[in-house]
Amino acid sequence: MASLLPKILELSGHSGFLKLVLKNKSVDHYKFFPAGELLCQNIQNEWIYSNVISRDENNFLFHSGESCCSSTAGLPEPFAQARELCDEQLPFGLAETRLENITNFDPMTDASATSESRFFRPKKHTLLRHISFAMPSAGQQFFYHWQRYRKMWWRKFSANPGRFSLEEKKSSQFNNVDLVCIKAEFPWGQETVETIHNFGTSFFDQLSSSVKEKFMAREGRKQVLPHVVESVTTLEAASLLFLCDAYKEVTLRDKTKEVLKLHRKLSPFKFTFSTPPCTVQLADNLYELSEHVGRNLRKSGISTLIKQDLGKKSFESQIAKNDALGIPFTIVLRESTLTDGMVGVRSRETTLEERIHISNLKNHAELLVKNY
Amino acid sequence: MASLLPKILELSGHSGFLKLVLKNKSVDHYKFFPAGELLCQNIQNEWIYSNVISRDENNFLFHSGESCCSSTAGLPEPFAQARELCDEQLPFGLAETRLENITNFDPMTDASATSESRFFRPKKHTLLRHISFAMPSAGQQFFYHWQRYRKMWWRKFSANPGRFSLEEKKSSQFNNVDLVCIKAEFPWGQETVETIHNFGTSFFDQLSSSVKEKFMAREGRKQVLPHVVESVTTLEAASLLFLCDAYKEVTLRDKTKEVLKLHRKLSPFKFTFSTPPCTVQLADNLYELSEHVGRNLRKSGISTLIKQDLGKKSFESQIAKNDALGIPFTIVLRESTLTDGMVGVRSRETTLEERIHISNLKNHAELLVKNY
Repeated sequence: MASLLPKILELSGHSGFLKLVLKNKSVDHYKFFPAGELLCQNIQNEWIYSNVISRDENNFLFHSGESCCSSTAGLPEPFAQARELCDEQLPFGLAETRLENITNFDPMTDASATSESRFFRPKKHTLLRHISFAMPSAGQQFFYHWQRYRKMWWRKFSANPGRFSLEEKKSSQFNNVDLVCIKAEFPWGQETVETIHNFGTSFFDQLSSSVKEKFMAREGRKQVLPHVVESVTTLEAASLLFLCDAYKEVTLRDKTKEVLKLHRKLSPFKFTFSTPPCTVQLADNLYELSEHVGRNLRKSGISTLIKQDLGKKSFESQIAKNDALGIPFTIVLRESTLTDGMVGVRSRETTLEERIHISNLKNHAELLVKNY
Repeated sequence: MASLLPKILELSGHSGFLKLVLKNKSVDHYKFFPAGELLCQNIQNEWIYSNVISRDENNFLFHSGESCCSSTAGLPEPFAQARELCDEQLPFGLAETRLENITNFDPMTDASATSESRFFRPKKHTLLRHISFAMPSAGQQFFYHWQRYRKMWWRKFSANPGRFSLEEKKSSQFNNVDLVCIKAEFPWGQETVETIHNFGTSFFDQLSSSVKEKFMAREGRKQVLPHVVESVTTLEAASLLFLCDAYKEVTLRDKTKEVLKLHRKLSPFKFTFSTPPCTVQLADNLYELSEHVGRNLRKSGISTLIKQDLGKKSFESQIAKNDALGIPFTIVLRESTLTDGMVGVRSRETTLEERIHISNLKNHAELLVKNY
C-alpha cells in the first residue's frame, strides 16, 4: 500500500493541484497549480475562521516577519497591540498565516518519521502558527482544551476522521516541555500534521527582566506572565495531507477511477456542469445555459467551473474528471432542461442525482455549500 | 493639508493597523499590527472574490514564485493547467496574491509622483496581480472593460468614490504599450494605486517560437496567441490607501476626533460593545452579556471585538476609540437591556442608534455585514 502516495502525487499534478519541486533529492518547495491555490486559500480561510474569527477569546492576526517559531522575536509589538485591544486582560491569542519560511527548523519531523514524510516537509513553506496567551491559573486546562479543539478541526474536514490521533511526548527541542503531535494514519505510516507545545511561562525564560516586562498582562487585577501554548502547522503539509486523506480508488463494473473526497469547504470548485453526449446545436444551447447559471452562482461567491466541452465526451468520463478534481456537486443539464427547467444536482458523495427547478438552484446551492 | 498623511500614519500605528519600517531613509516594509492584518486579509479576500470567484470567465489563482511582473517567467505551467480546465478555450485569467517581492521593479512609480508616494511603495511588498488571456478579436474591448471594472472595485470600498480616476498613457517600461493608471486624489497629490498594461500579443514577443507554442489557445476552432492585459497593485499600497481614504476628522462641540470610515467589508472588526459608565456590579453583568452575544456573532463568522473595560470610561471616549478603529457598528448595552432585552446598534456612518431585541441581533447583524 506504500505505492499509494506516488499515485496521489501524480493525480495532484495532472488535476492541477500541486507538484513537488526537488533540489538535491530533497523537497525544496511545492508548486501550486490553479486547483491547489484555491485549496490553500480555503484551508487558510478555514484556519483563520477557526483560530481567529470564531474563537471565544479575542484572537488577532499578525505578521512577525521573523523566520523562526517558538521564539519571542518579532512578538513584543503585536503582543502589546493585542493586549491593548483586550484592555490588558488575558486570555488572548495571536495567529500568523503569511510567513513564508526557508529554514531547516522543522518541529514536525521526528525520529519515527517514515520516508514518505519528507514529501510533507518542503524546505520552503508557509507557516500557520497560533500562539495562545492564557491565564496562568487556567493554562494547563487550556492546553488540553486546545489539543482537542485542533484535532477536531482536522477531523471536521476529513473523509476519514478516525485517522487523526494525538500523541503526547516531551519536546526534544525545547527543554522537555510538553508536546502534543496531531498525527494522521496512512497506509505507509503516520504523518505528524501539527505540533502543540505547552510552554507555560518558560516561554519567556531566556529573556532579560526588562524584556519580560513587555509580556506582562493582567489576570483580573494581578500582573502576570501569560501561559503560552503554541501550535504550528504548514499550508503545504495541510494541503498534501487533505489530498491524501481525500484520495479514494473506486471500482465500478471492473473499472477503477480516482475520486478526491475533499470536504466541500475545501474543494477548489463547488459546482460544475455535465450533459450527456448530444448534438452540437444542443450542446451549444446547454453551454449557454451553463454560463448563465454558473455566473449566477459565482455572484454568490460560490466557486464554479464552467466547462466549454459540455456534451462532447461520455457522461461517465465527464463525471470521472469532476471526481478527480474533488468537485462535490455536478449540475446535470439535459435536453429536457430547456423545456421544463429541471436540472439534476449530482452529489459526488452519494453519486445520487437530485432534481431541482433551475429557479431554486441558487438558493439550494447556497445551502449545500454554506452549511457545515 | 499635506500634513494629513503623518496624522494618518500616527493613527495607523496607535490603532494597531500598521507601521512603516524605514531603512536608509526609504520605506523597507510595513509592519502590520492586528487590525492591519485583518484589513489585509479582507482586502485580499475581496480582491479574490472580484477577480477570481465572481468573474464571468474562468479565473484561477496561481503562485509563480518568480519575483517580477510583466514577464512570462513562471507562467507556462499555470497557463497550461488553466487552459486545460477551460478545455483549451479562451478567455480565462490567472491571479496571484501570495508573492512577497523584494525588488525595485515598481510599475506604480511615475515621474509625477509626490514625495508622499514613497510611503505607498515599500521595497518589500505583496503583489496582487491579475493576468487576463482574452480572445484576440475581443482584446481591445476587454482592456476598456477591465479598466472600468477595476476602477469600480476601488470605488466600491471607498468613502469618497469620486477621488478615483483613470489616466491613460504609454508605458515607459514596456515598449510603449498602452498603460492605464488608476489614481486616487488626496490633499497632497495623486497616488497611483493600480497599473493596467494592455500588452496584446506583444507580451510573448521575446519568446522563441517553441516557447510561444506553449501559450497558444483556442478561439473557437482557431489556434491563437491570447491578448494579454495585466493589472498589478500591492497589498501594502491598497491597505494604506484605504486607510487614507477612510480617514476623517470630525469636529463636534469644539472637540475633534479621528474617524476611519472603512467600508464594512474591509473593517477589521464589524461589531464591538459599549455601555454608559455604570457600577462595577452592573458592568460585570453587561460584560458577561457582551461575551455571550459576541461569541454568537463570531460563530457566524462576523469579526467582533469583545472589550473588557465596558462601562469604565465615558461613553464618548468609548465610541471615539471604536471610530478610530474603523468599527462600523457598536452594540450598546444598558442596565435596561438586562430586563427588557433591547440593545442599541449604533452606526458609525449615521451616528444613529437603532433599537433591536437581543434575540434578533444575530440575523440583523448578518444582514448589515453581508449586504454590499
